[in-house]
Amino acid sequence: MINLISDTVTKPTPGMLQAMLQAEVGDDVFGEDPTVNALEAKAAALFGKEAALFCPSGTMTNQIAIKVHTQPLDEVICDEYSHIYQYEVGGYAFNSGIGVNLIKGSNGKITAEQVAAAIKPVYDWLPISKLVVLENTCNKGGGSFYTLDEIRPIQEVCRERGLSLHLDGARLFNALVETGESTAAVGEVFDSISICLSKGLGAPVGSLLIGSSAFIRQARRVRKALGGGMRQAGFLAAAGIYALDHHVQRLKEDNERAKRLGQVLASQTYVDNVRPVQSNIVIFDLKAPWTAESYLEFLAERGINASAFGPQTVRFVTHLDVSEAMIDRVLEVIASV
Amino acid sequence: MINLISDTVTKPTPGMLQAMLQAEVGDDVFGEDPTVNALEAKAAALFGKEAALFCPSGTMTNQIAIKVHTQPLDEVICDEYSHIYQYEVGGYAFNSGIGVNLIKGSNGKITAEQVAAAIKPVYDWLPISKLVVLENTCNKGGGSFYTLDEIRPIQEVCRERGLSLHLDGARLFNALVETGESTAAVGEVFDSISICLSKGLGAPVGSLLIGSSAFIRQARRVRKALGGGMRQAGFLAAAGIYALDHHVQRLKEDNERAKRLGQVLASQTYVDNVRPVQSNIVIFDLKAPWTAESYLEFLAERGINASAFGPQTVRFVTHLDVSEAMIDRVLEVIASV
Amino acid sequence: MINLISDTVTKPTPGMLQAMLQAEVGDDVFGEDPTVNALEAKAAALFGKEAALFCPSGTMTNQIAIKVHTQPLDEVICDEYSHIYQYEVGGYAFNSGIGVNLIKGSNGKITAEQVAAAIKPVYDWLPISKLVVLENTCNKGGGSFYTLDEIRPIQEVCRERGLSLHLDGARLFNALVETGESTAAVGEVFDSISICLSKGLGAPVGSLLIGSSAFIRQARRVRKALGGGMRQAGFLAAAGIYALDHHVQRLKEDNERAKRLGQVLASQTYVDNVRPVQSNIVIFDLKAPWTAESYLEFLAERGINASAFGPQTVRFVTHLDVSEAMIDRVLEVIASV
Amino acid sequence: MINLISDTVTKPTPGMLQAMLQAEVGDDVFGEDPTVNALEAKAAALFGKEAALFCPSGTMTNQIAIKVHTQPLDEVICDEYSHIYQYEVGGYAFNSGIGVNLIKGSNGKITAEQVAAAIKPVYDWLPISKLVVLENTCNKGGGSFYTLDEIRPIQEVCRERGLSLHLDGARLFNALVETGESTAAVGEVFDSISICLSKGLGAPVGSLLIGSSAFIRQARRVRKALGGGMRQAGFLAAAGIYALDHHVQRLKEDNERAKRLGQVLASQTYVDNVRPVQSNIVIFDLKAPWTAESYLEFLAERGINASAFGPQTVRFVTHLDVSEAMIDRVLEVIASV
Repeated sequence: MINLISDTVTKPTPGMLQAMLQAEVGDDVFGEDPTVNALEAKAAALFGKEAALFCPSGTMTNQIAIKVHTQPLDEVICDEYSHIYQYEVGGYAFNSGIGVNLIKGSNGKITAEQVAAAIKPVYDWLPISKLVVLENTCNKGGGSFYTLDEIRPIQEVCRERGLSLHLDGARLFNALVETGESTAAVGEVFDSISICLSKGLGAPVGSLLIGSSAFIRQARRVRKALGGGMRQAGFLAAAGIYALDHHVQRLKEDNERAKRLGQVLASQTYVDNVRPVQSNIVIFDLKAPWTAESYLEFLAERGINASAFGPQTVRFVTHLDVSEAMIDRVLEVIASV
Repeated sequence: MINLISDTVTKPTPGMLQAMLQAEVGDDVFGEDPTVNALEAKAAALFGKEAALFCPSGTMTNQIAIKVHTQPLDEVICDEYSHIYQYEVGGYAFNSGIGVNLIKGSNGKITAEQVAAAIKPVYDWLPISKLVVLENTCNKGGGSFYTLDEIRPIQEVCRERGLSLHLDGARLFNALVETGESTAAVGEVFDSISICLSKGLGAPVGSLLIGSSAFIRQARRVRKALGGGMRQAGFLAAAGIYALDHHVQRLKEDNERAKRLGQVLASQTYVDNVRPVQSNIVIFDLKAPWTAESYLEFLAERGINASAFGPQTVRFVTHLDVSEAMIDRVLEVIASV
Repeated sequence: MINLISDTVTKPTPGMLQAMLQAEVGDDVFGEDPTVNALEAKAAALFGKEAALFCPSGTMTNQIAIKVHTQPLDEVICDEYSHIYQYEVGGYAFNSGIGVNLIKGSNGKITAEQVAAAIKPVYDWLPISKLVVLENTCNKGGGSFYTLDEIRPIQEVCRERGLSLHLDGARLFNALVETGESTAAVGEVFDSISICLSKGLGAPVGSLLIGSSAFIRQARRVRKALGGGMRQAGFLAAAGIYALDHHVQRLKEDNERAKRLGQVLASQTYVDNVRPVQSNIVIFDLKAPWTAESYLEFLAERGINASAFGPQTVRFVTHLDVSEAMIDRVLEVIASV
Repeated sequence: MINLISDTVTKPTPGMLQAMLQAEVGDDVFGEDPTVNALEAKAAALFGKEAALFCPSGTMTNQIAIKVHTQPLDEVICDEYSHIYQYEVGGYAFNSGIGVNLIKGSNGKITAEQVAAAIKPVYDWLPISKLVVLENTCNKGGGSFYTLDEIRPIQEVCRERGLSLHLDGARLFNALVETGESTAAVGEVFDSISICLSKGLGAPVGSLLIGSSAFIRQARRVRKALGGGMRQAGFLAAAGIYALDHHVQRLKEDNERAKRLGQVLASQTYVDNVRPVQSNIVIFDLKAPWTAESYLEFLAERGINASAFGPQTVRFVTHLDVSEAMIDRVLEVIASV
């Protein structure tokens, strides 16, 4: 089967597996796993931040960031497509007791003007606007991404108005290989950053939350309360180090393959609309009588798995385990409809 | 001063005050205040429900309803203009740990189709859609209201899909005097109903939450946890009984006065747009160079208070303490701009 | 019936009712009720604090205090008999997401040494000890009270270790009429104080939370989120002002009547043990074959209501609505068993 | 160094590491990791339950169990020494919004009579007693354990009164190798069971929550919200399978080594008291002038690490990575003080 469902399905490469096997480990709940410590130090350095925290998932790093940046009765401002609003079980409310202040952006991207207009005045009956979260790239936005020039004005608004700015960078590197921007430059713009090692980067498990020492100290406590403190997590961290060392640049290939898919889809008569393909995600709408369901069935019968993104909408995601040959096969099937 | 800021500012009439003075009271935390019990029984009967609960505010009745209808990790579906999303400090998250699923309706009103489309499928990463809340009339919608014919299809969707349906009826009677629909008919459509006694009805303090006996039993516990259990609350309840007996029909006057205000405003050159006036709320946008701030100042200097609803937007609310003569004076000032 | 169930059952005196009737009111959600403002100013001044907040109940003032002094993952240190642990539906967890750190004190009273030993070191797996709450007098402790000399060392520990100190003073004045200490002196010792107007003081509804301006500003937001913002609350506040002006000194009578009850009970052969009577609460254990249930039934048949405090334990509470003649009757019945 | 700090510090054996390396993996968030699925099925079968859930930590399995068994405003009954009260950052309040109802048991063990007496009657001002949690073995109780004959009466009380019964079995197998009781028998007694793979069993990361299918379905949602959904978690699960297959019986050795430590400690003049050693934990009090700090320093200088359990109290834990030779060395050092 060719799996275009998500880049979360990637499996370790032999080199990564070897790195895992050789990992030196300790008890990370006591801060004594050398490989976890090395990964955290590496990630912090990469973004020019003081500290980082290894967590079991990107949902956890986002949820911890929200918790540390806010207090109950605050609110987070974000695009209505944001992962934290759409796909984290309403965790902003469950874990942090805060509300959302949703902005209707453009393919998941919001502007500084929108943020400035959304910040609430101080009244007893309104939550306090305390945090802005950007998702970059934005999954539900079809892999859209911001440039730093777009983000800096948002940072400026946050700074002036006293809000924190968090980056949900689950697929950040898919953006950076396109913009050519550096992680250090990203680190300068955000108060905290979440990156995922188990999507396109190919590690089996884990995400990193990155920020100041004080922020990460609080984050550790929240991680413990959520049950995210793991013992000999160095095996997973070793895969993460390997992923950062070897799998970043190759994301460019995933992005390019996604663009090829998008181009071919756009020329199919049964396709109504392909959202702009910017990174490794392709979202497109089908013309009736096709439905997402019938189309996915058609693909599955031909050895291709993908996922529905609406009754008439389908998502393809390219990643480490989708080779050039597989893409060729997908293109062939797509064109045969 | 003529106060058009809100219908929450109304003060007891002499008859109401007399009723308060003569109230027989007891300790309502033990369920032993006869006047509170009488008010609760009266409200329940009015809507054909089994039970009711007297609370210090409409925010509390809504928050309790949300809490009882949901559990953490559920979500509430509502229009993005809803009071529960806009003006209750993000209480849905704070008190109930649930998320919102916002619908972009029409002047605060949503349709059964929109509700059906919004209900989430069951995945681990999605909240469970458990509750729909309608606000009738809708404050931020400019006092817009639903007819029961519009609500019944929503009820049908809720019934089929296993969701509860709550009415935020803070200003319900402003709608009913227009539609001529009965409270009993309203009671048939909703699982729970919140009505406010301290807005247009003129009681000093209090709202009622109305529903089944089992629902209200749980609601009492939540009220206690929120600190809403009051002792000799019969003084307030007496005012509520008086309000239900004497102040419902007169809301028609408030609605008509609001319409007159709306008509005159619509003909002013400095007014850009008046939202459809359906009950006792008038929301209108000003043309530059007028701003809400400068316009409110202009009014205040002439003895009229109102409130801003946006940088260029102003809201007028008519109520018990705004007499015919006061309306005439407001119309005069409006036309003199 | 003679009601010894609780001092919460007291009803307004004619003078208090008159004060309520004449109250000037406004919308307190907007901070515009002059009588509420006057009561809040009066209470703040009484304790030498900057500000106060009028709330529907003592549970709400305590819950708000806990919320403002802590953040989720903190903990509150208190005696295991504390009202906040025993009788507020676990609100510390529900409203504030914090844990309790329970001390086994003496009749509800804890010492500075116990507090110091209970404060937790800083580890990721431990809550942060952030707040100490004292209840004075302590209901479940049988109306026991602290002197300021006992409290000051606790204050010292809190100051040194960075904890806040809150007083649940629901029945504070019952203690002060015994100790002769001033409210101003109490105000110096605590960061925040909750007093109840609707217990021995005889107002129908309401409690006050007292503290710094910054503290009360945050408290107002929490009050709104809990649904405790009331509109024309001045009617209730007027009763509160009257209570503070006229009903404080007479609490001494309640205390003395309770002591008389305690003395007579202690000499009855069917009574196993009377806890030291220090204020207006008498808690005593019955010898078999008497049970709380059978004893309360015996009393009820003779026109006296009281409450069970355990299978063999009964509580009497004296208050404004229990006259000298009623006490004589109770003593007569007690001795007739 | 000889590490007696905790059995959490154990590292994979070569066989376990080999099993990890060969694990077949998939995306467990989608339920598609075959090794995770195998481990969950194995654990469920072991206890005669329908389903199980693999989680990053024992704190998470406990926290999820509490969340699924309760709703906000409920409470959990447990011994005051319980891990869920002592060492999970007050997660019962943070994650579940419930209170604790603490019982003073005997070395962390409570009786059916105590549970029955602790269950609260139904009043608006009391939490609902909904869940009993037993920790077996009990860490803070010095590794004390229950027999099933002690637990069954508690189960009976829970069944009669409608409470759920959860087992925090982080070190359950340390008890079972002593009692000879079967996991199947344990499964019959509890509604849900949490076991830890990364303590004495030696797996690097992970715990299992075990219960009915309906229970685990809800648990999966909570796990997602807490951020505990991991992707290719099969590497960790493979270690868990290996641990269950190879490391259970050898816990008997850890227990016996602990007993030897306890016996020798008991005969030292500087030791005040050794709590009964029942499994792999030894807790003892030192006589002055020794303090936990000075004693741990003394040990550390001789290559032995342990942890303080109070100002005068020290804890030793034996485990997979503490060999017979190491124990001999520890005994030698202990006797040399």
